[in-house]
Amino acid sequence: MSLLLDNIGLLVTNEPEQPERTDAALVIDGGIVAWVGTAADAPTADERIDAEGRCVIPGFVDSHSHVVFAGDRSDEFEHRMRGEKYAAGGIRRTVRLTREASDEELLAGASRLVAEMRAQGTTTVEIKSGYGLTTVDEERALRIAKTLTTETTYLGAHVVPEEFADDPAGYVGLVTGDMLEACAPHAKWIDVFCDRGAFDEDQARAILTAGQARGLQARMHGAQLGPSGAVQLAVELGAASVDHCTFLTDDDVDALVNSATVATLLPGVEFSTRQPYPDARRLIDAGVTVALACDCNPGSSFTSSMPFCIAVAVRDMGFTPAEALWAATAGGAAALRRDDVGGLAVGQRGDAVMLDAPSYVHLAYRPGVPLVHRVVSV
Amino acid sequence: MSLLLDNIGLLVTNEPEQPERTDAALVIDGGIVAWVGTAADAPTADERIDAEGRCVIPGFVDSHSHVVFAGDRSDEFEHRMRGEKYAAGGIRRTVRLTREASDEELLAGASRLVAEMRAQGTTTVEIKSGYGLTTVDEERALRIAKTLTTETTYLGAHVVPEEFADDPAGYVGLVTGDMLEACAPHAKWIDVFCDRGAFDEDQARAILTAGQARGLQARMHGAQLGPSGAVQLAVELGAASVDHCTFLTDDDVDALVNSATVATLLPGVEFSTRQPYPDARRLIDAGVTVALACDCNPGSSFTSSMPFCIAVAVRDMGFTPAEALWAATAGGAAALRRDDVGGLAVGQRGDAVMLDAPSYVHLAYRPGVPLVHRVVSV
Repeated sequence: MSLLLDNIGLLVTNEPEQPERTDAALVIDGGIVAWVGTAADAPTADERIDAEGRCVIPGFVDSHSHVVFAGDRSDEFEHRMRGEKYAAGGIRRTVRLTREASDEELLAGASRLVAEMRAQGTTTVEIKSGYGLTTVDEERALRIAKTLTTETTYLGAHVVPEEFADDPAGYVGLVTGDMLEACAPHAKWIDVFCDRGAFDEDQARAILTAGQARGLQARMHGAQLGPSGAVQLAVELGAASVDHCTFLTDDDVDALVNSATVATLLPGVEFSTRQPYPDARRLIDAGVTVALACDCNPGSSFTSSMPFCIAVAVRDMGFTPAEALWAATAGGAAALRRDDVGGLAVGQRGDAVMLDAPSYVHLAYRPGVPLVHRVVSV
Repeated sequence: MSLLLDNIGLLVTNEPEQPERTDAALVIDGGIVAWVGTAADAPTADERIDAEGRCVIPGFVDSHSHVVFAGDRSDEFEHRMRGEKYAAGGIRRTVRLTREASDEELLAGASRLVAEMRAQGTTTVEIKSGYGLTTVDEERALRIAKTLTTETTYLGAHVVPEEFADDPAGYVGLVTGDMLEACAPHAKWIDVFCDRGAFDEDQARAILTAGQARGLQARMHGAQLGPSGAVQLAVELGAASVDHCTFLTDDDVDALVNSATVATLLPGVEFSTRQPYPDARRLIDAGVTVALACDCNPGSSFTSSMPFCIAVAVRDMGFTPAEALWAATAGGAAALRRDDVGGLAVGQRGDAVMLDAPSYVHLAYRPGVPLVHRVVSV
């Protein structure tokens, strides 16, 4: 079945030579972009959608989410807004509630959030475990995540659970041992929260290398709560992405340049924790590949809206609107080492989002407004 | 026709003695709240909606908008995000395009924005003229606005138009003379942008008192671009609201306390112009009545989302979530001197908004996420 998306006022394909086209059309055949060109030259197709001059962009690639969980932490959010600081320990509260929840409850909650993301233009999403922290609970989180995406991430090393508070080394042993064995069949990625209150660099190294030896690819939470060696460790281990990057040293930026590691920025976290925003301008000007993601989770960032993240990224992180859109689509794809999504060039997946706006600039110019008119996707 | 809204997890009525109720129900009869109580005591009604535990809040009262205009200024926004400062002069560009537009085009644009607001929970909206700046164009803007709301505001004194650049006194004469005569029949309010680049305090006084003499009630744009005498002038003239309040002196705050004038804060403006956020905490703690509004306009704040404004107000202005909700509902009603909207007490209008969330805290806790499940309204 072929589909012609015609009369596109502004089309973003993210092709390097010509990332944007005006008065464009797009043909999707069997879920794959088959033709891109000017509207006047558009071929016929089985079905035709008239974009009526709207802007069409690639579906967002949200490369960082934690949507398999139970309960919420709105009370903790309220306290934080009254002046309390965010700390990693709040994760343990969600762990308690998640362990108590049934598979059906966890699947329903995650499905609802993925549907919410999709309605806001996200067509590819990564989902992490990390609120189970037992072999059984991490494995079931990944089984549930796998019904919703192929981008599943084993994050047994989210925090040390309460029952291992006196034996963190024992927990690292579990994460790199039995838990890894149980989880690896359901995961593409392994991740670790390398920060104060979570895991140190030696532990992070042990965890990621164990995962890599088991065939998983590495990614990392780093430099969220303060500067550390996490970013350089991520680069050294060839992680696909180091996420947060709120506190970067010059050496961190140097390490990221020309590395295989994407810097994934998560504006919802700084927004919802009142941390300082990282300076994306510094990264982009240095030549670092930058992605934007929501980090949808009940503690530090409960947004599922990539348009919101783009608006904050433009206001507070130094992105231009074009750079923010690229980071939220092609950047996210790079952070997941995918070349089939994140753009609308011929041969890529036909995940196209029609905006109720003449330009993607409106994603930042009209903050908070639901601008997704329609999601056309496989 | 009576309607029972049943099984409400959390109901906000804004009644002073009991602003919030859990496990509640609400009966709306002929568009008016007829009964409020616990779900177990709910009477029967002609129709029943099961809120399924959701939070129900009063519809938002957006007391400041400029939605009758043509064109957009996304390019100006992009330049500003690259470092240019916001200046009042950009208004003149929208004036040129608005004058050229047909009545039908202006009505279609304004209707689309009002519908967008409504989908995001706004059930009462104020609309200003101010992009015509001729007698004919201001009068037609108000005629168009009047088809969409009863809260119409004559803002001939938005800026001095280009053709009066050398004769601002002549323009004030027009605004207080023929233009006022033509516009007054279509307006409830008169407003003036009293700031540098717009009108000074003497001009503002002449404009508002002329409007009051013609039966209009006063409101004011003040202290957006810097401190000035505008706020104290608004209080002196008994204006219902002074809007922006970005730069307030201690004397301004003292004047507002125990006055009949609401301080209306517009977070979208500071978000979209990178101005410093006003400190709502200082105002609330002093006892000033505070409202939140979108200021939807193509220059300084093109958001139509009251939930977005609430999220920013909580993060950056020192509101608690409960205070921000009050300011966006009852506060907006006070800024429009309305007691029939802004709450869901018995006798008020049955403008109720069901959220896809257990609490209104989620409006700030889940920034950017479209949480309005359904708008129940006259």
